[in-house]
Amino acid sequence: MSLDAIKDLLGPGGFIDDPKDMAPYLSEPRGRWTGSTRLVALPDNVGDIAGVVKMCQHSNIPIVPQGGNTGLVGGNTPTGNEIVVSLSRLNRIRDIDSAGFTMTVDAGCILADIQEKANDANRLFPLSLAAEGSCQIGGNLSTNAGGVHVLRYGSARDLVLGLEVVLPNGEIWDGLRKLRKDNTGYDLKHLFMGAEGTLGIITGAVLKLFPKPRQKAVAFVGLHDIDSVLDLFTLAQENHGEVLNAFELIPRIAVDFVTTHLPDGSDPLAEQHTWYALIELATADDSGVLISVLENLLAKAVDLGLVSDGVIAQSEAQAASIWRLREEISEIQKREGGSIKHDISVPVQVIPAFIKQACHAVEQAIPGVRPVPFGHIGDGNIHFNLIQPVGADTQQFLEQRESVNDIIHDIVASYEGSFSAEHGIGRSKVDEMRRYKSPLELDMMATIKRSLDPNNIMNPGRILAGDDR
Amino acid sequence: MSLDAIKDLLGPGGFIDDPKDMAPYLSEPRGRWTGSTRLVALPDNVGDIAGVVKMCQHSNIPIVPQGGNTGLVGGNTPTGNEIVVSLSRLNRIRDIDSAGFTMTVDAGCILADIQEKANDANRLFPLSLAAEGSCQIGGNLSTNAGGVHVLRYGSARDLVLGLEVVLPNGEIWDGLRKLRKDNTGYDLKHLFMGAEGTLGIITGAVLKLFPKPRQKAVAFVGLHDIDSVLDLFTLAQENHGEVLNAFELIPRIAVDFVTTHLPDGSDPLAEQHTWYALIELATADDSGVLISVLENLLAKAVDLGLVSDGVIAQSEAQAASIWRLREEISEIQKREGGSIKHDISVPVQVIPAFIKQACHAVEQAIPGVRPVPFGHIGDGNIHFNLIQPVGADTQQFLEQRESVNDIIHDIVASYEGSFSAEHGIGRSKVDEMRRYKSPLELDMMATIKRSLDPNNIMNPGRILAGDDR
Repeated sequence: MSLDAIKDLLGPGGFIDDPKDMAPYLSEPRGRWTGSTRLVALPDNVGDIAGVVKMCQHSNIPIVPQGGNTGLVGGNTPTGNEIVVSLSRLNRIRDIDSAGFTMTVDAGCILADIQEKANDANRLFPLSLAAEGSCQIGGNLSTNAGGVHVLRYGSARDLVLGLEVVLPNGEIWDGLRKLRKDNTGYDLKHLFMGAEGTLGIITGAVLKLFPKPRQKAVAFVGLHDIDSVLDLFTLAQENHGEVLNAFELIPRIAVDFVTTHLPDGSDPLAEQHTWYALIELATADDSGVLISVLENLLAKAVDLGLVSDGVIAQSEAQAASIWRLREEISEIQKREGGSIKHDISVPVQVIPAFIKQACHAVEQAIPGVRPVPFGHIGDGNIHFNLIQPVGADTQQFLEQRESVNDIIHDIVASYEGSFSAEHGIGRSKVDEMRRYKSPLELDMMATIKRSLDPNNIMNPGRILAGDDR
Repeated sequence: MSLDAIKDLLGPGGFIDDPKDMAPYLSEPRGRWTGSTRLVALPDNVGDIAGVVKMCQHSNIPIVPQGGNTGLVGGNTPTGNEIVVSLSRLNRIRDIDSAGFTMTVDAGCILADIQEKANDANRLFPLSLAAEGSCQIGGNLSTNAGGVHVLRYGSARDLVLGLEVVLPNGEIWDGLRKLRKDNTGYDLKHLFMGAEGTLGIITGAVLKLFPKPRQKAVAFVGLHDIDSVLDLFTLAQENHGEVLNAFELIPRIAVDFVTTHLPDGSDPLAEQHTWYALIELATADDSGVLISVLENLLAKAVDLGLVSDGVIAQSEAQAASIWRLREEISEIQKREGGSIKHDISVPVQVIPAFIKQACHAVEQAIPGVRPVPFGHIGDGNIHFNLIQPVGADTQQFLEQRESVNDIIHDIVASYEGSFSAEHGIGRSKVDEMRRYKSPLELDMMATIKRSLDPNNIMNPGRILAGDDR
């Protein structure tokens, strides 16, 4: 009955209830999470979202807010009890203010469209990640998305000046401010970002824009050893911190995968190295020559014995080909069999120690396993992926996921790291929350959840288990 | 009785209860807020703070947490009902990690000491404000302090990776993480920053450090008119955004005050201009010459007709003398009589329109009043100060404070600005909260306050009025 009222409110085109048409909303790209629902609501304005939430509150119907449905941790997949509220039709760029370096957007705008719109206005919106062609900004903010430029520009939450949120009681909070400084009470916007839709539905945001870089310089260097990566990072920071746009660690095995499996994949360097770094500088300043700056940095690094060899891209095509090496790592691994992944972070200065210890531990647990640790040095976020041993049974390997996760996450915890650096908690890491978070911290989160969503209708079971509340 | 228990816990030297020794804790430097208390607790470790809070919770004794006591809005002054918990003795630098670009500090560390310690480690802690010689980092974080480098580095909250907080129930939340990326549930640290001690007592923090600039370049320029300041700011951002360290607006009257009242005060430019900008670039990169970069920028600005004249400091002494012009504005005003101040922000692109409208409105209300609008263009934060008309009665002028505040704050609100950009709410702006915030937003804040501090013992009456709760 109450679903009928929701359908009436939204009207034809405003919802889907035919099971076969609902399919795209019920599983995520990898197919690891699948679910079911009675209704996918597709409101195209904030008032209707508020209306739907009010009805759900009244009838105690839980809601899964859904953006581009690219999340990897089960936060966006309904379990059967909830209806889905998709933000896809709420997708207008509301305002772009190039003098004020801001853009105001609906939550359903695709990230790549926002990047493009900013670019058209001679500005940069720096959030950039693999799913940018289909993920939506509302989901990016709700999960505090990361990507390769966190080092320089921060995570998604750092790129926001204001928010509009439909609260669990169906009220619309208009926090769409364009202010760079505002000390008038509690910072409510940070509460909703990273909350994965459990405290309300983000429906709009004022985003920060940045000056558009006019020069980029990209290098791919072979490191002396894994410890050198930290010294090289410090050298780059101390000398060129303000233009350091990306600093990525890549292991030899990833280069092997790319050269083996990509028809046009090649190793940019003549000799093999155990570890590589990809360094990108970018600047809005066109008065100097950025490639020379990068050359000088690498010359210093060679003198200090940190870098054995390296190449600086001399064209955009060459830069793109170096970046491709890094960006293909996730995809290319699939050709080598099953993989068990960890999206972890540790304090930057313990990255080498962590990698050594974690590799050793998994090699003890699964002889022949192939670790592929890569990622963002600057923010301590390592994608610690493990590929099955050559010739092993994929299914048997994957069955060890949980025990391997525990091994890695325990080591991460011993370094005071995070078991979820970028991807969030969703449903997949609710158990880890209980294992690694203090009861006090879980209790603080549950207190806040209860106070804003006493009937637990907003994305229930995500972040906090039902009985944490 | 319960105060005796607190004294027993803290021991000799751990508290003050002699009225004459308590005096420094009972008023702030300007003397606008004075109060009284039965006890100033001076715990020197986190456990004792937790102990005091537990006892206060048990006996329903409210607490005013106090840092360097430099706040301007009455948040730090006890009303007689509360005891003061001073953080002054909790003042150790716990750890400095130059490779990881972090520093872990007790809340009672003086800001200038933290800056110096970072500097010794070849790093920068960029928070910088007038009170830095006596304010404490815990207070800076609790009030989300600003300063002149927000444009580049953000407010105090943006400089924090982790927090330690004694909660209203006396539990210690250890959120002292050094992680640059961590998506494991709600971001609790942002809730305590800017909460002005109403949700708990910040006792420690992990701060972000930055590469230390090795070059600075400072210019003082006469603008064509007030509208030019935005175009000049955009030009500076688009070309040198990553090294733009400060961008301050200064009106002619402020230069007059400085040259009139400072024995060695002089106008850096030969001719008079109505408006000036102070521009500072700073970079860690020593490969180029930053002064040339600034020269080129100003040459462009002259070509575009934005700037009529300007000078670039050729020495550190000259740079300091230009900065002094800006920094003396607050002090020097006092020589011209009474002043009514507004710490407001508006979206950056409406600053000229706001200043024109606000000046007109106050000149209508008080003929002869002398507006001195100055401040941080980059973050929209204008210190809109009004000096009494020449020869007017100071007391009579100051009696118009509230009505003038209303005029200015109404105009600010019409531009969707903030009536408290930097200084917070404390007790002085609780009425403005009710006047300008939506009931929904006040209710969200009250809900959070009630959920974490149900007995309202933490800095009661600050931010939210007693009956908002």
